[in-house]
Amino acid sequence: MLTFVGLGLYDEESITIEGRGAVREADRAFAEFYTSHLVGADVDDLESYHGVDIEVRDREGVEQNPEPILDAAESDDVVFLTAGDTMISTTHVDLRLRAHDRGIDTRVIHAPTAESAASSLTGLQNYRFGKATTLPFEWVHGADGVPASVTDTIEDNRERGLHTLCYLDIKVGETPPSNRTAGRLGDKVDNPYREGDDYMTASHAAGLLAEHWNPDALGVVVARAGAPDSLVEADTLESLADRDFGDPLHLLVIPGDLHHVEADALTGLAGAPEDVVDERTV
Amino acid sequence: MLTFVGLGLYDEESITIEGRGAVREADRAFAEFYTSHLVGADVDDLESYHGVDIEVRDREGVEQNPEPILDAAESDDVVFLTAGDTMISTTHVDLRLRAHDRGIDTRVIHAPTAESAASSLTGLQNYRFGKATTLPFEWVHGADGVPASVTDTIEDNRERGLHTLCYLDIKVGETPPSNRTAGRLGDKVDNPYREGDDYMTASHAAGLLAEHWNPDALGVVVARAGAPDSLVEADTLESLADRDFGDPLHLLVIPGDLHHVEADALTGLAGAPEDVVDERTV
Repeated sequence: MLTFVGLGLYDEESITIEGRGAVREADRAFAEFYTSHLVGADVDDLESYHGVDIEVRDREGVEQNPEPILDAAESDDVVFLTAGDTMISTTHVDLRLRAHDRGIDTRVIHAPTAESAASSLTGLQNYRFGKATTLPFEWVHGADGVPASVTDTIEDNRERGLHTLCYLDIKVGETPPSNRTAGRLGDKVDNPYREGDDYMTASHAAGLLAEHWNPDALGVVVARAGAPDSLVEADTLESLADRDFGDPLHLLVIPGDLHHVEADALTGLAGAPEDVVDERTV
Repeated sequence: MLTFVGLGLYDEESITIEGRGAVREADRAFAEFYTSHLVGADVDDLESYHGVDIEVRDREGVEQNPEPILDAAESDDVVFLTAGDTMISTTHVDLRLRAHDRGIDTRVIHAPTAESAASSLTGLQNYRFGKATTLPFEWVHGADGVPASVTDTIEDNRERGLHTLCYLDIKVGETPPSNRTAGRLGDKVDNPYREGDDYMTASHAAGLLAEHWNPDALGVVVARAGAPDSLVEADTLESLADRDFGDPLHLLVIPGDLHHVEADALTGLAGAPEDVVDERTV
């Protein structure tokens, strides 16, 4: 049996009771933290909390060489741990399909996701979000601006009155090109969870969209969704670009039309200026 | 302090460890189950699991007369419990804003949602979903078919290659009109969680869309997301309309374009016929 268990958004206590039960009862526990990871707990914390050894696999150990995990799941109860909910990445679906092809039973134990937390924390209603998008680092797509796919998604959603959740780029253990400018190095967080990782900040993202799309558009920053010190701030992109929202992870929401309670939430809970919110309220 | 705690998707073990801690430490615990509820646990189960008394409020007790909850939160640590994640309904955002206006600190503890579970269980990627929609009972909107807003949402999403999550109508404790037809009464579940509640089944939903939209379109049923006996089945809407997916809650996903791994997941894990899936694979 191969049970996929979501660890949730922040630390060892972000898992569900059901998930913890599955981890504790498992014969072997595998995990991957290259698609996403917890910022409030490392592997040692998880091992000591659950009283199990956790075998962490890198991308190659999941995607190219998954046989040891599948071999174990053929005879034993095996859990496969990921941050957030499970199956968020194609990688996990692929692993589940391989297990299925070998006749291994699989099971999924859910956990909170950044996507639903962004909706909860901002007061923006979940059924009023359109397609999500990811804003990449400039050095990744090789241009100075914002890829058209990102602004097209935002514009398409706004035409239909819908909000857009922008995931911000994370590069795990990758070294950016040496010609990376000083301004871009400013995104490097002071106290990263892991040395060498690189998280795009919401202020950097707001700056990119302000410069290459619309400086006056309303944006909503969600920092550290699921953590005790989570933060939500709403203002024009131009204004958000100048602020510091602290440690990662950050998300940026570009609202479409706002219903009355959504508008009240952004002014009341996220400090949005009333004139900026009024423009988008229907 | 007013802490909004999500109970998750199924029973008393669907809450996170962090959420359980907040419930156990609270001076008073309120809950509402009219916007959504757990199918695997009732209030007695929750009270005995957490060792607290839970004061359940109906719609009026949350929306018209929230003062007792807010009065308690002014001096004590109060938790407010909801199924799924918190803040899913405007009602909860409104309560949080009222607390904020009275200077009461608020906090949000997240939980899994049906929305992210639907993505995890089907293998359909979460960033490829467009706007969600809700399919109402015919007797609610007073017509025989499907409201144009529902099919418009599905069509809009499909034009952009995106999947549509259809929530299915739930009527809590409401009596349908006496002229309701026998066919519609067939939706009544045999073993409902609460007498008088009425859940639209996925087969009923697939039948409505097959008759009034497109019988040959691919649909994916998710039954009991988050429960141990969750089930996922994919086929044409016409075919899904003839099946029985068991106890509620049910969801119905109408896929847009399918990526290769998504197509494999629907055939491998959800039993979709290859020719139906091939038509939508890009």
